[in-house]
Amino acid sequence: MAESQEILLQKIKEQGDLVRKLKAAKEANEKGKKTDSIGSVKAVKEYDLREIDRHLSQYSYICGYMPSNCDIEIYKNIGTKVDFEKYKYFKRWWYHMRSFSDSEIKLFPKNSLPSIMYKENNKLLDDQIQEEVKKLLALKSQLVTEDAVPQKFTLKTPKGTRDYNPQQMAIRNDVLQKIIAVFKKHGAECIDTPVFELKDVLTGKYGEDSKLIYDLKDQGGEILSLRYDLTVPLARYLAMSKITMLKRYHIAKVYRRDNPAMTRGRYREFYQCDFDIAGQYDLMVPDAECLKVVTEILNFLDIGKYVLKVNHRRLLDGMFEACGVPADKFRTTCSSVDKLDKSPWEEVRTEMINEKGVMPEAADRIGKYVIMNGGVELAEKLLKDEKLSNSKAAIEGLEGIILLLKYCELFGIKDKILFDLSLARGLDYYTGVIYEAVLTEPIKIGNEEQTVGSIAGGGRYDNLVGMFDSKNKQVPCVGVSIGVERIFSVLEAKLAAGEMRVRTNEVDVYVASAQKNFLEERMKICTELWDAGIKTEHSYKKNPKMLTQLQHCEDNCIPLAVVLGESELKRGMVKIRNIVSRQEEEVPREKLVDEVNARLALLNTKGINGV
Amino acid sequence: MAESQEILLQKIKEQGDLVRKLKAAKEANEKGKKTDSIGSVKAVKEYDLREIDRHLSQYSYICGYMPSNCDIEIYKNIGTKVDFEKYKYFKRWWYHMRSFSDSEIKLFPKNSLPSIMYKENNKLLDDQIQEEVKKLLALKSQLVTEDAVPQKFTLKTPKGTRDYNPQQMAIRNDVLQKIIAVFKKHGAECIDTPVFELKDVLTGKYGEDSKLIYDLKDQGGEILSLRYDLTVPLARYLAMSKITMLKRYHIAKVYRRDNPAMTRGRYREFYQCDFDIAGQYDLMVPDAECLKVVTEILNFLDIGKYVLKVNHRRLLDGMFEACGVPADKFRTTCSSVDKLDKSPWEEVRTEMINEKGVMPEAADRIGKYVIMNGGVELAEKLLKDEKLSNSKAAIEGLEGIILLLKYCELFGIKDKILFDLSLARGLDYYTGVIYEAVLTEPIKIGNEEQTVGSIAGGGRYDNLVGMFDSKNKQVPCVGVSIGVERIFSVLEAKLAAGEMRVRTNEVDVYVASAQKNFLEERMKICTELWDAGIKTEHSYKKNPKMLTQLQHCEDNCIPLAVVLGESELKRGMVKIRNIVSRQEEEVPREKLVDEVNARLALLNTKGINGV
Repeated sequence: MAESQEILLQKIKEQGDLVRKLKAAKEANEKGKKTDSIGSVKAVKEYDLREIDRHLSQYSYICGYMPSNCDIEIYKNIGTKVDFEKYKYFKRWWYHMRSFSDSEIKLFPKNSLPSIMYKENNKLLDDQIQEEVKKLLALKSQLVTEDAVPQKFTLKTPKGTRDYNPQQMAIRNDVLQKIIAVFKKHGAECIDTPVFELKDVLTGKYGEDSKLIYDLKDQGGEILSLRYDLTVPLARYLAMSKITMLKRYHIAKVYRRDNPAMTRGRYREFYQCDFDIAGQYDLMVPDAECLKVVTEILNFLDIGKYVLKVNHRRLLDGMFEACGVPADKFRTTCSSVDKLDKSPWEEVRTEMINEKGVMPEAADRIGKYVIMNGGVELAEKLLKDEKLSNSKAAIEGLEGIILLLKYCELFGIKDKILFDLSLARGLDYYTGVIYEAVLTEPIKIGNEEQTVGSIAGGGRYDNLVGMFDSKNKQVPCVGVSIGVERIFSVLEAKLAAGEMRVRTNEVDVYVASAQKNFLEERMKICTELWDAGIKTEHSYKKNPKMLTQLQHCEDNCIPLAVVLGESELKRGMVKIRNIVSRQEEEVPREKLVDEVNARLALLNTKGINGV
Repeated sequence: MAESQEILLQKIKEQGDLVRKLKAAKEANEKGKKTDSIGSVKAVKEYDLREIDRHLSQYSYICGYMPSNCDIEIYKNIGTKVDFEKYKYFKRWWYHMRSFSDSEIKLFPKNSLPSIMYKENNKLLDDQIQEEVKKLLALKSQLVTEDAVPQKFTLKTPKGTRDYNPQQMAIRNDVLQKIIAVFKKHGAECIDTPVFELKDVLTGKYGEDSKLIYDLKDQGGEILSLRYDLTVPLARYLAMSKITMLKRYHIAKVYRRDNPAMTRGRYREFYQCDFDIAGQYDLMVPDAECLKVVTEILNFLDIGKYVLKVNHRRLLDGMFEACGVPADKFRTTCSSVDKLDKSPWEEVRTEMINEKGVMPEAADRIGKYVIMNGGVELAEKLLKDEKLSNSKAAIEGLEGIILLLKYCELFGIKDKILFDLSLARGLDYYTGVIYEAVLTEPIKIGNEEQTVGSIAGGGRYDNLVGMFDSKNKQVPCVGVSIGVERIFSVLEAKLAAGEMRVRTNEVDVYVASAQKNFLEERMKICTELWDAGIKTEHSYKKNPKMLTQLQHCEDNCIPLAVVLGESELKRGMVKIRNIVSRQEEEVPREKLVDEVNARLALLNTKGINGV
């Protein structure tokens, strides 16, 4: 937008503010309210300052969401005479006002508003309102007569976010539908929660990652943050609604101010697909079903070979205990172990010793365990391990793993599961089994290979709901989260490499005409087809070219066209064209719906209805 | 959370920050980077100041998202010696730092970090890290030993928002699926955009309502706001992607800091369902299809009788012109007319005269037009109207309406359309046809009647996309938005009144057992059914009671149960129970999948498969 236009818009905005404030002043006058408690700044009294401070404890600015005339007037007049240390909020306001640069301050309007606002006489206010409204309209009329001039700022989506175009949406919807189908097959219900939560709800749940939370601006009222995951909102929901049993899925976007790596599907706004089972049940029964759900989803999506690693937080604790790590260092040692998927053991060992204060001998003992992985035989061997068998926690963890692996065998997914002592998972809130699905082979896209790695993860968290309950009442939970963004990015890369094709609409019939002046006839035919529930399109141009219309059908994989011609219509006939085979058949116009339905049924059976 | 606990957490956080910064300093040392360009504040040089200013142009604070030790150290040392007018961003940072209150500053850590950070010797840093890590662990261990104390804040969703429980989600998904089906029937593609936009994108689009926009906190980086509707993001998307033709739907939540009236479906977070057609097409052809889409949706949802009011912005302009309103008062007079759905004419007239500066005679002339409504005959009568026929704009508007009504007749929706001269629509950006769907009868729920009113609205906006294009290139658009929250609230009220029932899951088969120790057998059967694609559940308890299991089926409308018994299993048989009829039949275990499928097919045909 041109500079002059921007200034004009700014003036209009300010003039509009002025008019609104005058009206508000008038209204306040009429209601007999005193508006001058905040405004009469020329004679500063102790009372006024306290009043301003009180007002500012609830609002960032005096008159609205951004510095208003009133703010500016007070700011200009209050000077430095005030002992701001006495007024905490006033002080904050004052410094915020001071933070505007000279060039910004020059844009502040000149009108001496407060002297107007406190006129007792409404008649004078009315005159003033009319006067200012006139100025506003004069400004607006300038805007109308100048043609809208484009804006200057860079046109982009916020960092780490993106739009989904129709092709990307088609992929996304297809993946999500498949995931939802599996969730529903296991009887999960669906819930949704607001995109933001009270900031307090998120506080203290994510450890070091809390710095990645998006906060909303304090615009007066509650302090809010965007959700960081779907697990904490679930726990808040269960505690708030006093629900002790729920099998739910939740598919929604979450927000993290992380460094985005968008080509690898790492965004600041991204989808999570969560499946969780809350309730007091028997050991490992719901836990094993979560694994079954993950295998069904990954099989259904068919994006490559994978392995489901499992471990147990209690076993990790027992292992640390057995290796001689003091209890107060379990969690922090655990977060070192969690780095084993990215760093070699030597680095992890150094971190343990230098940063976590683990003794070198203890670290070496840990090193012998975390290279182990296998099946039920490993768990049974470890149950007889000299050191581990002395730890109650280790035994509990190992017995849990053995039971889990047994149930996985019953579920027919034993070959996908790997008991892996190096799996630790970052989040603090896990209390039992933990799992992570990893693609074992890079995915070939064109001539390139894309390493995807971790694609789902989860575990048991029995203490999170209790953190929200006033009586600390616990609801045990176990769940899993599917990392769909990585799946989207693989499929989008395949699309870009020409290895797959998607339909972005589902239109079955296009109503076309070869001759001019058939718009109304097309509309009638469309109406008949729409009213019969048939997905139909036509051109929005009066006299489109035949070639353009048929090209549209080919581009969009529309299988059938109804072609209108004058001579056929006179005989009460229309043509149905198969776009792929280019065959045309005449059918009676009055039987069009039946004829179209018959052909669509046939195409669907044959499976050549588009992609 | 207890006060002491809060302080402890604060300390842990600060100590953690310190440790992280020490590690970062060490890493920077190792990479040979000079970290002292920002930090060596004790000898301030011109170069340093410029460097800090450059750094702050990209980040709000020097070391992170909140004032860090480094910020504080610089703040304490830099004093007022600096000529801040030379450093715009540095100045802003400085005043932001000053805005912290005394009590907040007291909480700032005492460690003189910078003097540490620039130690050349990594060994010293290592010692320091170990020292600080110890302190951190000591603090954390205090936290672990105290039992988790429940938090004190009120457990609620943010003002004007709500959770959707499974029943509400079932309703919501059902309504949205029906709406999407209609959108798809008309060939619409789907897009999605981020939940937030650069604040600049939203600025200047919503007039007075801009104050209702949710802003995100400035945490360094871009200044963001939550989307206010789906129309402006669409325009931004079209301009940014240089798309000149698109028929798209977009269903997503939008955010307005309005005063919520939640019982009537007015929230701060709410769904919009938008259908828009962008592109240069022939007059009224896409416009009429939008109306067709609305009628199909409202018929499909079947929530009551409705009327679709239409009018034309050009006709309104021409009418104001003909009545003697000056051109610069058209928009503001229009916004008075917009209030006619809620206020009587007398009030609107007074506003026009007193606030908008319309002459009383002109207002009276307007009053004679805005009571008019009807069909094509009214438009044709007005075309011959003495005053209107002199206005080019009025003729253009009326001819548009006549064409629109003709197309609506071809679409078979003439009886739903009402040409209404009082319809004005609030938003500034409309340039042509405008429409609004209104339920004409209150909805009966139990013994109460709920007035719903406006349920969809839209119009043509030909200039919005150009506002985002650097060359001001226009993409004409027309669209409609379905007010689904009001539909949800009606249906939820019906649900609460017991007038409807919804299924919150789709489970077809429940695997139950009458005797103990059948968990593993149930799991095997479940696996067979799941792997055959049958929606199946069982109890997560080892030995659930038969009555509880059957009750679960009845509560959740699950039609079939597979009942396992020892004696049957020995004979290779299982029982299938119809939950409604309570009939049981024995079938061979090995044929279970086929037998279940056969029964489900029968139930689906008969239409008694749940609700």
